[in-house]
Amino acid sequence: MTTPTIEQIFRHVSVRQFSPEPVSAELVESIVAAAQRSATSSNLQMYSVVAVTDPARRARLSELCGDQAQIAQAPVFLAWCADRSRLNRICQTRGHTQAVEHVEPLLVAVVDVAILMQTATLAAESLGLGGCYIGAIRNNPAEVIELLQLPRLTFPIAGMTLGWPATAPAQKPRLPTSAILHWETYDDEGEGEALREYDRTMAATGIYQGRQVAVPGGEGEMEDYGWMEHSARRVSQPQRTGLRQVLGEQGFELR
Amino acid sequence: MTTPTIEQIFRHVSVRQFSPEPVSAELVESIVAAAQRSATSSNLQMYSVVAVTDPARRARLSELCGDQAQIAQAPVFLAWCADRSRLNRICQTRGHTQAVEHVEPLLVAVVDVAILMQTATLAAESLGLGGCYIGAIRNNPAEVIELLQLPRLTFPIAGMTLGWPATAPAQKPRLPTSAILHWETYDDEGEGEALREYDRTMAATGIYQGRQVAVPGGEGEMEDYGWMEHSARRVSQPQRTGLRQVLGEQGFELR
Repeated sequence: MTTPTIEQIFRHVSVRQFSPEPVSAELVESIVAAAQRSATSSNLQMYSVVAVTDPARRARLSELCGDQAQIAQAPVFLAWCADRSRLNRICQTRGHTQAVEHVEPLLVAVVDVAILMQTATLAAESLGLGGCYIGAIRNNPAEVIELLQLPRLTFPIAGMTLGWPATAPAQKPRLPTSAILHWETYDDEGEGEALREYDRTMAATGIYQGRQVAVPGGEGEMEDYGWMEHSARRVSQPQRTGLRQVLGEQGFELR
Repeated sequence: MTTPTIEQIFRHVSVRQFSPEPVSAELVESIVAAAQRSATSSNLQMYSVVAVTDPARRARLSELCGDQAQIAQAPVFLAWCADRSRLNRICQTRGHTQAVEHVEPLLVAVVDVAILMQTATLAAESLGLGGCYIGAIRNNPAEVIELLQLPRLTFPIAGMTLGWPATAPAQKPRLPTSAILHWETYDDEGEGEALREYDRTMAATGIYQGRQVAVPGGEGEMEDYGWMEHSARRVSQPQRTGLRQVLGEQGFELR
């Protein structure tokens, strides 16, 4: 049960090394135009994307996004933004006032732009391009906002590198579908075994290079460091704790 | 410059009327498994989807989601959830404590699930299925959480109807790409003309049925009611103002 689109979906990998060949403006426009066909809440189209090709600006973005070399190397950097500023300009023209003080106006725009950018990703990958989402665009959002001259009521949600792949990275295994798909109601029974199976699958990729870690409550017993330990350590560190303030400065109060 | 995937993307329409033919569990599993190939932040896979087929539960979901008949009619309803509860269970197993009190832990999970669900949508559409995102799943989130037995640190971000299309709806035009794609920095110069062009394009679809509205500041002068007036009125009404509280009850403090 497959289709050319599903085959394309199964080919996805995150590409972080690119050939020096540029990506034409027409190609970027075609990709964004295709992505615009995606669903958008109430047809409000609460998104914008800033395409950056200027090497100096990409170098600065690289610094702001965790010093990622791929951002300076990829010919195009895309900044995907939740955007309610266009609706604000429309409201001003029409004599209305936009209600933006609650969580919903941000949330619905975040979903809108995420749908847009994922369609763009699949369109780009189908053309032979590759890239990688850059969540680190939220590391220093105030500086990114200034650099890209984003107006009030816009916010950078994800970055993306875009270019012609120089390498063919290996795919990462994902959780068994049973761990994320529930029927009728949420049910985490059987999840433990699915997670242990996934830990073994990820260990077999060699991605954690045979590191060992103490068994929790195991009196000094050691075991392989796996996806669960890696993920647990990662999410136990608070990340991007200044987002709320910058969102507020951009007009999203999140009441 | 096209590909089978881009052709598929251009065929998207939101389907709200379905044949009575069921959608098999295997088909839903294939679609979700394909979607899992999408990018996920740090491979954390912060999402779950609850597939509902039970007619009584779908009828209740229809009530909770703005009385939408399509939810009772479609053979499958998918509730796409941001999910950090799995990571919490993993943290407990591994002796760590998840940091979830800031905005970022919700935001990154919302982006994760939105990427997943949009890939699922394209996979489903390529198989001849159709459906429609249901943002109204956020109308009564506490009741949806109870009905689907969603644990703490999960949150329903979007619903989706899924089934075999009974109709072939018309596509809605979208904004000119120039209005949403910016080069190097955000630039809304020329946006006004793009918006007026889009207003005329949308008016030509007959979607607003020749309604008239007063010209703002026009001393009683009348003009066609278009996308701008429609959108401005819509976003001037506060929506889903209780989200923040329910997010807090689910463990997302949004500090």
